[in-house]
Amino acid sequence: MMYRLYDYLSSGNSYKVRLLLAQLGIAHERVDLDIDQGETRTPEYLAKNPNGRIPALELENGEILPESDAILFYLAEGTSFLPERRLDRARVLQWMFFEQNYHEPSVAVSRYILQHTAENSPRRAELPRLKEKAHDVFQVMEPHLAGRDFFVARRYSIADIALYAYTHVAPEGNLDLGAYPAIRAWLERVRAQSGHIPITQG
Amino acid sequence: MMYRLYDYLSSGNSYKVRLLLAQLGIAHERVDLDIDQGETRTPEYLAKNPNGRIPALELENGEILPESDAILFYLAEGTSFLPERRLDRARVLQWMFFEQNYHEPSVAVSRYILQHTAENSPRRAELPRLKEKAHDVFQVMEPHLAGRDFFVARRYSIADIALYAYTHVAPEGNLDLGAYPAIRAWLERVRAQSGHIPITQG
Repeated sequence: MMYRLYDYLSSGNSYKVRLLLAQLGIAHERVDLDIDQGETRTPEYLAKNPNGRIPALELENGEILPESDAILFYLAEGTSFLPERRLDRARVLQWMFFEQNYHEPSVAVSRYILQHTAENSPRRAELPRLKEKAHDVFQVMEPHLAGRDFFVARRYSIADIALYAYTHVAPEGNLDLGAYPAIRAWLERVRAQSGHIPITQG
Repeated sequence: MMYRLYDYLSSGNSYKVRLLLAQLGIAHERVDLDIDQGETRTPEYLAKNPNGRIPALELENGEILPESDAILFYLAEGTSFLPERRLDRARVLQWMFFEQNYHEPSVAVSRYILQHTAENSPRRAELPRLKEKAHDVFQVMEPHLAGRDFFVARRYSIADIALYAYTHVAPEGNLDLGAYPAIRAWLERVRAQSGHIPITQG
């Protein structure tokens, strides 16, 4: 049996895992679950992942590993995508937690609201505040990237994959990256990595 | 020079680091920054941590490591607080990301609103929805702990520290743990660990 990824094509969190699997050349099955149709909340799926979210990776032994960044760390251990030095590994985690704690709740949620709610949805009222928070996040990323090619240890790692996933589609959340040349140059460097696939590719 | 922790006594995220430092017996200085007084947003502190949050650990070489769970992972590597097996390490991260992605935004934020905003604050309107989300989180933790003493690998680890920090003060957010006997028994087991300190201890 091979890896099976419980997935949703437009999810940046799922895309992180698809991208790393592609770059590691790891064969896997995909099971698409439509979050808008409640497909992650069926009794069958909750028995696999009680938190009812995607992505989740079914391992070769049948165990289920949820949380996109825990999956990235698991797959990357022992490969070039995760540095060996103790402080570098902590820095990778620092940026992955930064992504989940500040970036995803502003950048990804802006995109989600614009793509998944009706124009008259009350959730649209959140957008101005989310835009402010998203630019706070970009203003932390920009100076860090101004002097570096990648987030940690001068090389492409799962920290870059984690932050690329929702940054590159920020314009779909009506978030303009025009003021951030270092972020835009980094997006190009990530896109140029061997084995890169777009978010639209299953 | 020793470790220096940029800290805030009532923060559960900071408490995670204080607790692990105490249990590892690592000497450190503490610098208290009052988040309500903007002390994490001064130019001096932003030069250290551009994201302007606590906790952040200043290492012996002067580098600053932010994000509570990245700090826990850094300090725990090579100790009994982080399992060695690859899948166990990923499970520790799974639960730490679960904590930051679902637990902290509901359980910790409920407590924050009740402790740090006035009774007529508009933020109080968030409390009913946060309570629902907090109980969703407890309902993921409860069955997991019903068959286990600790979250991962049958032993006390940084996954337990990460989840203990805000769970044990859930009642301060008006969140009742009465319906969760396995969570309450686990809180007692964590409290009984050697070198445990309360959140009030600097």
